Amino acid sequence: MLTPFRVDTNSLFITERLNEVGIDVRLKLVAGDDVEALAELLQTALGWADLIVMTGGLGPTEDDITRAANARLLRGMTMPQINRRQALVPRGADVLPNPNGTAPGLWLEHGRTALVLLPGPPREMKPMFEAIVVDRLAPRTSGAGLFRRVLRITGRTESDVDATAQPIYGAWTAQAVPIATTILAVLGQIELHLTARAASRSEADAVLDAAVAELGDVLGDSVYSTDGRSLEAVVGDALRSKRFTIAVAESCTGGLLASRLTDVPGSSAYVDRGVVCYSNRAKIELLGIAETLIAEHGAVSEAVARAMAEAILAQAGANVGVGVTGIAGPGGGTPQKPVGTVAIAVVVDGDARVRTFQFVGGREQVKFQAAQAALNMVRLMLAGG
Amino acid sequence: MLTPFRVDTNSLFITERLNEVGIDVRLKLVAGDDVEALAELLQTALGWADLIVMTGGLGPTEDDITRAANARLLRGMTMPQINRRQALVPRGADVLPNPNGTAPGLWLEHGRTALVLLPGPPREMKPMFEAIVVDRLAPRTSGAGLFRRVLRITGRTESDVDATAQPIYGAWTAQAVPIATTILAVLGQIELHLTARAASRSEADAVLDAAVAELGDVLGDSVYSTDGRSLEAVVGDALRSKRFTIAVAESCTGGLLASRLTDVPGSSAYVDRGVVCYSNRAKIELLGIAETLIAEHGAVSEAVARAMAEAILAQAGANVGVGVTGIAGPGGGTPQKPVGTVAIAVVVDGDARVRTFQFVGGREQVKFQAAQAALNMVRLMLAGG
Repeated sequence: MLTPFRVDTNSLFITERLNEVGIDVRLKLVAGDDVEALAELLQTALGWADLIVMTGGLGPTEDDITRAANARLLRGMTMPQINRRQALVPRGADVLPNPNGTAPGLWLEHGRTALVLLPGPPREMKPMFEAIVVDRLAPRTSGAGLFRRVLRITGRTESDVDATAQPIYGAWTAQAVPIATTILAVLGQIELHLTARAASRSEADAVLDAAVAELGDVLGDSVYSTDGRSLEAVVGDALRSKRFTIAVAESCTGGLLASRLTDVPGSSAYVDRGVVCYSNRAKIELLGIAETLIAEHGAVSEAVARAMAEAILAQAGANVGVGVTGIAGPGGGTPQKPVGTVAIAVVVDGDARVRTFQFVGGREQVKFQAAQAALNMVRLMLAGG
Repeated sequence: MLTPFRVDTNSLFITERLNEVGIDVRLKLVAGDDVEALAELLQTALGWADLIVMTGGLGPTEDDITRAANARLLRGMTMPQINRRQALVPRGADVLPNPNGTAPGLWLEHGRTALVLLPGPPREMKPMFEAIVVDRLAPRTSGAGLFRRVLRITGRTESDVDATAQPIYGAWTAQAVPIATTILAVLGQIELHLTARAASRSEADAVLDAAVAELGDVLGDSVYSTDGRSLEAVVGDALRSKRFTIAVAESCTGGLLASRLTDVPGSSAYVDRGVVCYSNRAKIELLGIAETLIAEHGAVSEAVARAMAEAILAQAGANVGVGVTGIAGPGGGTPQKPVGTVAIAVVVDGDARVRTFQFVGGREQVKFQAAQAALNMVRLMLAGG
């Protein structure tokens, strides 16, 4: 994990689950395959940590040294023989069975500190954590855990969201069950992460539900999800509940809008078709867009976006039609229509809305933001907003 | 960075750049906002590290404590006043200017150890590292750096690639300029990472070029890239060099194939159009697929995939036509055609190839692997393989 290629995801899972049972994570550490260094670091952490969780380094290969470092540290044992490595257990350790792999986990105790050694592969580590470690941790926790809720917001800037939300969430840190709030700007959306420290999930749910409702009042319909659903899933649920079908005509998004809609399981119930018209000829042939309309307004224009949405709607006999045309870059921009200019039209049962956006970023960023904006326009129109 | 939401990417960049100038990374550490704990950890690392690089914690807010921990450790200074924080510099430290933000970096030395404090935002950290830190590190390095090459392979399993490549790369660890090889299985592709420790980039290039050629001999045309290019970029370059255009007809990939093709800058030169036929009616209307063909073979069949590819090719007047039809899941599978069954046809100037794949994984994984397989079939046909 010390190469530039590997992103650590095990620790994200472990942090979330530990937080939920009331254990703060003070330190994360990524060590190389050096028994001495690892033993020294463990020694330091034993001075203050109640719990040390380690993943990886339990396999039979010669660079799997976690067990050796622990053994050296806690028992003064010498290095086990290589060919017996996986069968060796430091004295006093409990073996945690691994139904999904060959390397078992280990549970050791040293004074007040518990050391938990888990296998590295996530598909082995996660089931072991859930099935065994959570129960073993229970007597060591106060019962007060961290519980989270994420609000996802689109169509507003980070500073706008923060200026609106801060007067609300600023007061939550002082209440009986305090809530900490973090704002996170991701491409095409803003996330508000609420973290409550509460004695139980039901206590946390009560304050978090109230907090989410308060934020909803001031942020309005820019909040598209409070339960982890993606924007495409929210749009899909709205389409399904109305028994609507959707058809999309894309230029600059190049199929990304259709692809995101069809990422949702069950989307074949409401996605009828999509066309990607990358050439003007394709716009004319697939959608019957008049050449004179393109000549008069330009391919990137609200007039063409609307004509695309209306054409795909009529052709598919769908309830919702979307047209997206723009300049994803890096080439193709002009002073009047720079890179990032995107016109989007949504037609729902005869009602049409058209907007022009100016997105910032590289080609893939423009594509993503344009698909996001189109999905959001559909969402708002279906909500009657 | 101790929440479950944030993935550490700064350390990947820093590791790669340090490796290139010959500095091994022995330990990565993610600490919370606790001055005492951070100072204690720094103390431990001072015992053995030649270089300590820290990012973040240099801003004016009260939780930016990296500077305070360093000052306390190295100089016995007391905590600076909050409102003067960003202007305060531990005695003896060099200030590293930050043209992209307000918090400057710091360079401190303690015995043989250099401590480098960099701002947290990547768009401030990276330019500072490149413009200042690399030069300052030069006199501290031996000149022997780690240099890397990545081979990307698709259409073969990890165990097959390893069985073929291991006899080759197994010999490289013993040569004058040794190369370490790591195999990494990512969705839809296998990567071979070659790392050479060499005195200079030119020395590394020589051994790495020879190594890549050796692997290319045994792995053949399953290697699609040795220079970091994505599969869609490789396909795009082949289309461009032949002055070919491409048109795609997708069912289960839902627009992902068109979207990946259009992720490549300049792809409007060769992508003509795409259609996403999610309903059978759309297949019939957009592509003129005969209802009897669907009834006879099923929508997911080689016959329908080929008819889709031929129809979109003819309609667009393109040189390359692709048809993809399959079952992305989670629903829709049958005993004969389980979830993950995908038929793909590629037609190039009258020459057609059709294959049926059986992919494993959830909906998005099946979509990705199907798009990957379709791109790879196009690549191989354009290469005349």
